[in-house]
Amino acid sequence: MNYKAVINILGKIMFIEGALMTLPLIVALIYGETSTYMSFVIPMTGLILVGFALGVKSPRNNMLLAKEGFVICGLAWIIMSAVGCVPFVISGMIPNYLDAFFETVSGFTTTGSTVLSKIEGNPYGLLFWRSFTHWIGGMGVLTFLMAVVPQGDGQSMHLMRAEVPGPKAGKLVSKMTDAFRILYILYFILTILEIVFLMFSGIGFYHSVVNAFATAGTGGFSVKDASIAGYHSPYVEYVIATFMLLFGVNFNLYFFLVIRKFGTVLKDEELRIYLGIVACSIGLVMIDLLSHFSNLTTEQAFRHSFFTVTSIISTTGFVTADFEQWTIFAKSILVILMFVGSMAGSTGGGIKVTRILIYFKEMIRDMKQMLSPRQVLSVRLNKKAVEGSILKGVNTYFIIYVFILVFSVLLVSIEGEGLVTTFTSVVACLNNIGPGMEDVGATANFAHMSVLSKIVLSFDMLAGRLEIFPILLLLIPSTWKRH
Amino acid sequence: MNYKAVINILGKIMFIEGALMTLPLIVALIYGETSTYMSFVIPMTGLILVGFALGVKSPRNNMLLAKEGFVICGLAWIIMSAVGCVPFVISGMIPNYLDAFFETVSGFTTTGSTVLSKIEGNPYGLLFWRSFTHWIGGMGVLTFLMAVVPQGDGQSMHLMRAEVPGPKAGKLVSKMTDAFRILYILYFILTILEIVFLMFSGIGFYHSVVNAFATAGTGGFSVKDASIAGYHSPYVEYVIATFMLLFGVNFNLYFFLVIRKFGTVLKDEELRIYLGIVACSIGLVMIDLLSHFSNLTTEQAFRHSFFTVTSIISTTGFVTADFEQWTIFAKSILVILMFVGSMAGSTGGGIKVTRILIYFKEMIRDMKQMLSPRQVLSVRLNKKAVEGSILKGVNTYFIIYVFILVFSVLLVSIEGEGLVTTFTSVVACLNNIGPGMEDVGATANFAHMSVLSKIVLSFDMLAGRLEIFPILLLLIPSTWKRH
Repeated sequence: MNYKAVINILGKIMFIEGALMTLPLIVALIYGETSTYMSFVIPMTGLILVGFALGVKSPRNNMLLAKEGFVICGLAWIIMSAVGCVPFVISGMIPNYLDAFFETVSGFTTTGSTVLSKIEGNPYGLLFWRSFTHWIGGMGVLTFLMAVVPQGDGQSMHLMRAEVPGPKAGKLVSKMTDAFRILYILYFILTILEIVFLMFSGIGFYHSVVNAFATAGTGGFSVKDASIAGYHSPYVEYVIATFMLLFGVNFNLYFFLVIRKFGTVLKDEELRIYLGIVACSIGLVMIDLLSHFSNLTTEQAFRHSFFTVTSIISTTGFVTADFEQWTIFAKSILVILMFVGSMAGSTGGGIKVTRILIYFKEMIRDMKQMLSPRQVLSVRLNKKAVEGSILKGVNTYFIIYVFILVFSVLLVSIEGEGLVTTFTSVVACLNNIGPGMEDVGATANFAHMSVLSKIVLSFDMLAGRLEIFPILLLLIPSTWKRH
Repeated sequence: MNYKAVINILGKIMFIEGALMTLPLIVALIYGETSTYMSFVIPMTGLILVGFALGVKSPRNNMLLAKEGFVICGLAWIIMSAVGCVPFVISGMIPNYLDAFFETVSGFTTTGSTVLSKIEGNPYGLLFWRSFTHWIGGMGVLTFLMAVVPQGDGQSMHLMRAEVPGPKAGKLVSKMTDAFRILYILYFILTILEIVFLMFSGIGFYHSVVNAFATAGTGGFSVKDASIAGYHSPYVEYVIATFMLLFGVNFNLYFFLVIRKFGTVLKDEELRIYLGIVACSIGLVMIDLLSHFSNLTTEQAFRHSFFTVTSIISTTGFVTADFEQWTIFAKSILVILMFVGSMAGSTGGGIKVTRILIYFKEMIRDMKQMLSPRQVLSVRLNKKAVEGSILKGVNTYFIIYVFILVFSVLLVSIEGEGLVTTFTSVVACLNNIGPGMEDVGATANFAHMSVLSKIVLSFDMLAGRLEIFPILLLLIPSTWKRH
């Protein structure tokens, strides 16, 4: 372990977080929330001073291997959350440190599970920070670091592999720093676009911005007690639903759109399956809603279905309809979508459509293989055979994912909530959705959970966002050996 | 597809089933249940005549490949159930054919899920047949065929691979027919032993035999309305719990015991883990019971815990305590044990301990691999590296297993039971346990489920017992092509 290089990059991350805190401070200044100034200034000062001290001078040996990449990634996200929650504690908005930590992990990991039962009435600056964590976490902090402070290509590759979701982190352009800049520019443009569309609804600049942040990161924190339902505006619902769908798409495809490689986008198998799953789910849920709730118009059924399906599959977790009241069939579809998640390389969570697609193709391949044992059959994606090492990675990802799921359910079950609450709280956190079912459902929150459960669920949110390894490796002693 | 050879072996299987029906008929004769004679005689006559016609003359080309092995296995189990349920229909004990089919599939697959709300009072002969299906299904019908009617070694290998549970069907002795005879002899001896132990309790010969059948096959059909709790005898509970544990063990290990290879048995990793999981689960459940139910003595807590844990992990499904009343922690343990299941090569179901062990070792291996990408690390079981082809099979088994689980839950959810009932009904059937939770729990049954659900769950029971492929391949058109 190259400790010096690790600490150096962590310092840079801390500095960036401190700098990013100026934004909510400005919001607090605009709204004249004098009592909250110090809750930002104290952690900001700490982050900037410590970050500068650690990060200013790169060590002579700044070589990073895969191991350092994972460790930096895991530690960065934990430190970001551990300090990022301080404003909530100092201001008294969330006085309990563990609760504030849970809320901030939920923010950065773009989960959106909250411990707040009352959201409206809290200071604008703090709520802005809460929503801003989604935006920061969505595209990733290491990615941001690499976009603004160029690192060596070898370094960048290991950091990117650790943070970017999906089985295969593809290079868009030959120079890594350019690739990260392109990603962030696209992310920025899409966010601005959503803000503009939301502005037309008349909900105002502040609400447009915070909701765009939560959509862009596929997070789901809302500044309304009733989430998006609180705006009582079908227009807002359609805009946000559409952007949730868009932010669940692999950002590489937007790059291909920009450079006019339309064919690549149209033929992308993962995109087709993603849109196919969305369309089927919307159709099934809509039919189910219409046949069980006679008071709904077709438009309402379509809108609730469209919004909820895109909210769940993109792992955002915004709510317009209390799906707790829906049929078991509709709820089963939602729980399945929670696991599926969005596309690799998007800001969303879950297992990712590309992995599900690979699992499905492996299944077909293996059955064919059983029938003709002598043929050599490969799994093909976008007309190319998937490499053996990626197949292996995808398979073991699933196995570790299930181990974590099972072990978390067991630990959360100790506190004695219902089976559905226990199970879906873990599913919602591990897949970075936000709300689960029953006591952690659409209209409930996570405040009532025990200390143990909150720690386990925080771990699950981080494991989900970072796709397990960066967090899990921190727990293994041999990770910490010097080279 | 070598249709002639397939039909020939299916004929032999039908003949054997017809012959096996003489036993319940004899029971009916002993108890003088005259009204039920014909319900056995009619299907028996049919099976023996048709079976003889199809099976008497082996075709000139009797070569079987893997494909034929799977097809024979899948079809054999479906035909056995489709005809095996006829006595229940003719006698009027279960007048609805689908219900009777579900009950018989549940019997042969050693699941033990029942549609009967009232069991006591039914004819002895029919209840004997119901329990006897467990015993037949436990060790397998193809295995029985190969033990009594020797087939070529090549043929036997493919049939065995299709029917015997576990990732790797090992050969005990060089000649296959001998191996199957040894397995059946061990199965027979253990069953007799249990009958003898149960006789000492004073529950009588009939009850001793039917409960021994249901334990040996790890089935769980009871002839009492309250399952094993109906005997009100701690002695009976201890005997059955012990034998459930024993029948969850790989039968190859008993063979090693007989030939005095004690070292092989003691060092077997799967056995150690199996016993370790059982011991931990018993301990945790017992502590949980003692701390939540003050009216229980330590002995009672131990007994309920010992019985329920062995009943679930062996996938038998006998009941002495209404675990519906237990805490969510205890229930979570039970649900996890439902998935784990027993040892490969036992009569139990579930994913099997050996697979779980391989998954766990793969997880550790892959994390180590991440830390040192250049090292070549293998997964080792019993000090031998697990072959790549077996690892691959174990991984894709899990993926297909999860696909079937998810798809079944979705189909069963259409009928609108609760989430827990929907989920655990599929889990209980796919893992061949018997009871699930809530409306299909310890004191409930499956009678109320819809036609669609019963078909889906019957499929799941067969897929679970035959480890998916023999049943799934039947649905693929290319399986049916001629060579």
